Order: sequence, then structure tokens, then C-alpha cells
Amino acid sequence: MLGTGTVGRNVAGRLAELDHEVTLGTRDPEETRAREGWEDVHGVGVATFADAARDADLVVNATNGAATLDVLALAGADNLAGTVLLDLSNPLDFSRGFPPTLLVKDTDSLAEQVQRQFPEARVVKALNTMNNELMARPTTLADGDHTAFVASNDEGAKAAVTALLTELGHTDVIDLGDLTGARGMEMLLPLWVRLMGTLGTANFQFKVVR
Amino acid sequence: MLGTGTVGRNVAGRLAELDHEVTLGTRDPEETRAREGWEDVHGVGVATFADAARDADLVVNATNGAATLDVLALAGADNLAGTVLLDLSNPLDFSRGFPPTLLVKDTDSLAEQVQRQFPEARVVKALNTMNNELMARPTTLADGDHTAFVASNDEGAKAAVTALLTELGHTDVIDLGDLTGARGMEMLLPLWVRLMGTLGTANFQFKVVR
Repeated sequence: MLGTGTVGRNVAGRLAELDHEVTLGTRDPEETRAREGWEDVHGVGVATFADAARDADLVVNATNGAATLDVLALAGADNLAGTVLLDLSNPLDFSRGFPPTLLVKDTDSLAEQVQRQFPEARVVKALNTMNNELMARPTTLADGDHTAFVASNDEGAKAAVTALLTELGHTDVIDLGDLTGARGMEMLLPLWVRLMGTLGTANFQFKVVR
Repeated sequence: MLGTGTVGRNVAGRLAELDHEVTLGTRDPEETRAREGWEDVHGVGVATFADAARDADLVVNATNGAATLDVLALAGADNLAGTVLLDLSNPLDFSRGFPPTLLVKDTDSLAEQVQRQFPEARVVKALNTMNNELMARPTTLADGDHTAFVASNDEGAKAAVTALLTELGHTDVIDLGDLTGARGMEMLLPLWVRLMGTLGTANFQFKVVR
């Protein structure tokens, strides 16, 4: 799990509950251990980005979108080669305040940027369209009666991520095809951010009714 | 109703069924009458854009997004002044083929462009996030158990459009606040277009589960 923000910690903790062996990647493991006490509380190891990615069956990018390419470079292209890389980040730009704008959109996506920069990684976009609590524990809202999306150029990687989503409790996973499907997933964020303000909560989710 | 495409015809027909007096605005009424036989079949009058907009209680922009500003200019700023203008169009650019890209996004929206160009119109963004069949007859899918959005700088206009949506059968209408809310609504289109391809149908809708 690359990233020690709320998203990374929450999803990592949930995966550990499900008996996955999880290592949280961070810039400075000593600092993160001291600040968070992660290994004591959650049974999740803490390591450098590179050590966390090395030999992982699946790497999750839970960094913020503006830092994603830098963090993945620290994780190391060699460590990501051949590895399923679940990208749940969003290319949000908060530099001009709130609401954020998108760093990339329309004819490209952050997921595609990652895939181009790390061509041997098996990038799958998923879970970026919901709050991290619902990423980790979807059945806490409406018994999980809402929709997740996946997009990837690698069918095997997409199947692995879909299986993981199912294990987390996502019952309706729509396959949006190749990684260009990430464009629409990331461009959903402005509506998501607006709804969070309107509804006064992040505890909502999109369902594709059909 | 400005626009004689599928969207305009379908929504106009539905409004006429609900006993609204509807006039379809078009560039060339004689040509439209000859081609479509509208007045015979649907009880919907056909007139120029300007004649359709003049004295209307509510004007619907059902033109394609690339033509919207031109058509509204033909309708006439004077005819739109003080009038509720329901904008259900999308700023899709098909000039580079499929999928379309967005003519405006992120820090602006077509609805805001319309409002700036016609400051005296009472612009409300709504219904652009679904297929025209579901705009007109939402209860045909899942008994209407899905979500519509509205955004406007004018509370009275928003209330009028919300009432119209309710009359059409939309039971869950979320108020996204002022017209900047249209950005997220329009940026939902890339995901909508992708889903249409994936699902093989336009007969789907988003529901905000909360």
C-alpha cells in the first residue's frame, strides 16, 4: 500500500483484517511508525515505498494524485514490473483552493499516465469514485447496493482486482474495458466533490441502475 | 423546446402528453413540418427559435452543445430575458470522432457560458446526465429509483424546474446549488458514454445511494 493518508491506512487496515499480508509504503518508515504506531495497532508493516513494492503480489497506489508519479518512481519501475498496480488515486489539484480542479482530463487520465510511465506495471483503475470507508467496507451503505468500476489494459490484472473488490464486499463491479475507461472514472470527481458538499457527508455512492 | 433532435422531440412529446402547451423551435419551421409532420402527430407546434421562445413560461435548450450558443442567439436575448431556461444539453465535441471530448470542462461549463452570454435568462442545468427516454419517462426504469440533479443561480427557476421534473416522474432530485454545479454534471458524460458502450444500452441511470 503506497501512501499513508486516510485512504491508504483505511484500506490497508481492512485488507489486513481479511488476512492479507500488507505493508504500508512511506517516504520515512521511522517517522511513520513513530507518528502512527501502525505495527502495534493494525498489524500492518511499514517500509519504504521500494521495500513495500518489492515482491508484492499487488501494489495499491493510494497516494494523492499530484504525488503519484513521484511516489511510483520511488517505489521503483523494477519493483512494479509485472505487478498488478491498483490505482485508486484522483488527479485533484487543490493548489487553487476548493473545489479542486483536475490535473488531467478528457483525452487522458492519471491511470494512463502511470501506465505510460511504468509500461511493465499492470495498471488497473478502480475504487477512485467513492469515499475510502466505502472502498474498504462497501456493505456499510445500503448493504453494498451500489457500483464499482474497473478499467485496465490487462485482463488478468483486472480479474485479480475484481476478485479483491468482491472480497471487500463490492457486489456490482462494471468492467469499463481498457484503461481509457479511467477518464470517465476520474472525471466523476467534480460531481462527487460537489455532492459531498451538498449532502454534507462522504458516505454516499453511485449506483448504475439498469 | 429549442431543438428538433431526438432529445427535443421526445421531451416535447412527453410534455404535450402532460397537457403542457409546447412549441418546438427550429431554424426552418416549414422544413421541419414537412419532414416530421409534428403538428399532425404530436400536437406540438413548430415555429422559429425566436417565435418558440417568445412569451414562453419555460424554454428548454435541447440543442447539441456545440450549437447551443448560436441557437440561443437566434432565439433572442430579449425573448429569454426573465425566462426560466432549462439547459439539458452537453458540450460534446464529436469532431474528432468517438468517444466525444468536452468543449468546456473543469473550471467552466456550458451552462455557465449560457448564463454569461444571456445574463437575464434564468438558467437551470438539469437532465443532461441521462438518456432522453429517461428524461421524459423516468419511471420506465426501476420505477424511477434513480437520481436527477439541478443547479442554478436562481432559486425560483430551480424550484420551477424541480417541479417539472417531479411531474415527469423524477422522484429523487438533488439540488447541487449554484450553476457551478453544472461542471460536475457535464463532466459525468465521459463515464455515461463509456457505460453506454459497455452496457450496450442507453437505458441506464445513476442513482446516488445515501
